Amino acid sequence: MFIDGSYVSPTEARIPIFDTGFLHADLVYDAVSVWDRAFFKLDSHLARFLRSIAGFRLISPYTAPQIAAILARCVDRSGLRHAIVRMHLTRGTYPEGSRDPRLCENRFIAHALPYLWLWGEEKCRNGVHLHVSSVERISSRAVDARFKNFHWGDLTSAQFEAFEHGCDDAVLCGPDGALAEGPGYNIFVAKDGHVATPATNCLEGIGREAAIELCRMEDIPIETRTVQPHELRGADEAFATSTGGGIIPVTRVNGRTLGNGAPGLLTSRLVDLYWAKRRAGWCATPVSAFLSDRQE
Amino acid sequence: MFIDGSYVSPTEARIPIFDTGFLHADLVYDAVSVWDRAFFKLDSHLARFLRSIAGFRLISPYTAPQIAAILARCVDRSGLRHAIVRMHLTRGTYPEGSRDPRLCENRFIAHALPYLWLWGEEKCRNGVHLHVSSVERISSRAVDARFKNFHWGDLTSAQFEAFEHGCDDAVLCGPDGALAEGPGYNIFVAKDGHVATPATNCLEGIGREAAIELCRMEDIPIETRTVQPHELRGADEAFATSTGGGIIPVTRVNGRTLGNGAPGLLTSRLVDLYWAKRRAGWCATPVSAFLSDRQE
Repeated sequence: MFIDGSYVSPTEARIPIFDTGFLHADLVYDAVSVWDRAFFKLDSHLARFLRSIAGFRLISPYTAPQIAAILARCVDRSGLRHAIVRMHLTRGTYPEGSRDPRLCENRFIAHALPYLWLWGEEKCRNGVHLHVSSVERISSRAVDARFKNFHWGDLTSAQFEAFEHGCDDAVLCGPDGALAEGPGYNIFVAKDGHVATPATNCLEGIGREAAIELCRMEDIPIETRTVQPHELRGADEAFATSTGGGIIPVTRVNGRTLGNGAPGLLTSRLVDLYWAKRRAGWCATPVSAFLSDRQE
Repeated sequence: MFIDGSYVSPTEARIPIFDTGFLHADLVYDAVSVWDRAFFKLDSHLARFLRSIAGFRLISPYTAPQIAAILARCVDRSGLRHAIVRMHLTRGTYPEGSRDPRLCENRFIAHALPYLWLWGEEKCRNGVHLHVSSVERISSRAVDARFKNFHWGDLTSAQFEAFEHGCDDAVLCGPDGALAEGPGYNIFVAKDGHVATPATNCLEGIGREAAIELCRMEDIPIETRTVQPHELRGADEAFATSTGGGIIPVTRVNGRTLGNGAPGLLTSRLVDLYWAKRRAGWCATPVSAFLSDRQE
């Protein structure tokens, strides 16, 4: 864990009560996966993190190469072979008596944790059961979903609703009624061999980017467009994408089984390709690449 | 500051990085004012705090009387005569490897700070300049604004926009295009002696409740209804209500002066009445009432 300019044990790391990251959800973050001690699509994650920072009018105290070096150091210190590495930038603390966000000193926090499968490894391999939620996803006209942020009240509320319906998680629709995203993942539907994923009101996920690239490599028709919830409920196959699990089969939606209830053929092909390519070093940057020049 | 069951110095108080209050804005809060060592409308604040807790599906570890005793103790320890006392309940920390909000132990935090005027005392007395923002307020269909929460990304973004326009703060409209609220305050408009305040997509503020009660006492027509932004820009008078400043004159909107640029007559009457009644003990509960039975 890197916080306030030094490395500490993650369990010891705490932030001041008055940090606006806590008080006003005034922070952005990103999460990059490490497999076999190599980052996946690190440049995409760093570029997005810097876009999120600019979008929230925060100011990064570090350049992208400096952040990469800190993330690598966090992984190295953790001793983990497979990890999720998270970086955050909070607005920081107001000067006393003020509530002017321009006067805050932004706070950078990073840490490495054991690789996390979004719904546990077994479910992520065998398929998850999603609930199309009645809770509306926060509109990008209010908080732009492209800037990775922690405005999760709608997502958490939708999760509770999903659990009550016996589902593993929720997927939410935007104010236009079209599919948006779920808590920490993007959604894809497949019908008659054509794949589609929502174009707007969702995070431009790096797992989503990877899935789109794999579809193109495999000549599978893929569109980013408006996707209606009935297309998910009536899909031949569906899958989620997330840094925590890659490409994850969705096998049930609102109690209805998709296909025969096993991960679909097209989905399985993408999952296999995703992991084969990752093992072969696709978009990989060794953590060690940043460790030669050690910084405290 | 009361956190994790004990009292500490506010500047020392920190929360774990992994608290979902920090990571997912998964907390609710409330803020009650203390003037001359008496709480204002304490019961209204406690009732709303418990509604916010239930609305976010959190579970309070304390009853309303227990919370009141903790708040009183925070004020007493602070030595403050005039204070803002805040209470928070966060979801807490996920068990390792889980992201199931049902498994978290909720964390209660309270503290007393010196009384805060939302825009400084001078501006709160002489009038503030508001900017009707182009940023949309988060819809209550996504995160219910009646449950006092920290989903402030839209509010902060709107504040930056307001500052760029030379204004003191922003007021936002909901997805229906009607006025909603600003960062930490409700908005009222007055035209031809009639007062109105938005009915939906806003916090049911306790300062708002007080202003409505004062209007009724004074036989000033008051409506809670849909209020369009042009009604603010074209108002005879306008005011904001907040725990941090009570009833606060708005004298300019988007660069246009309301009336003659001084606080309006109706507004001034309500401001004077508000403070006269507060000094006279209106809706006041002495902090000392909860201090006989001291608890550590």
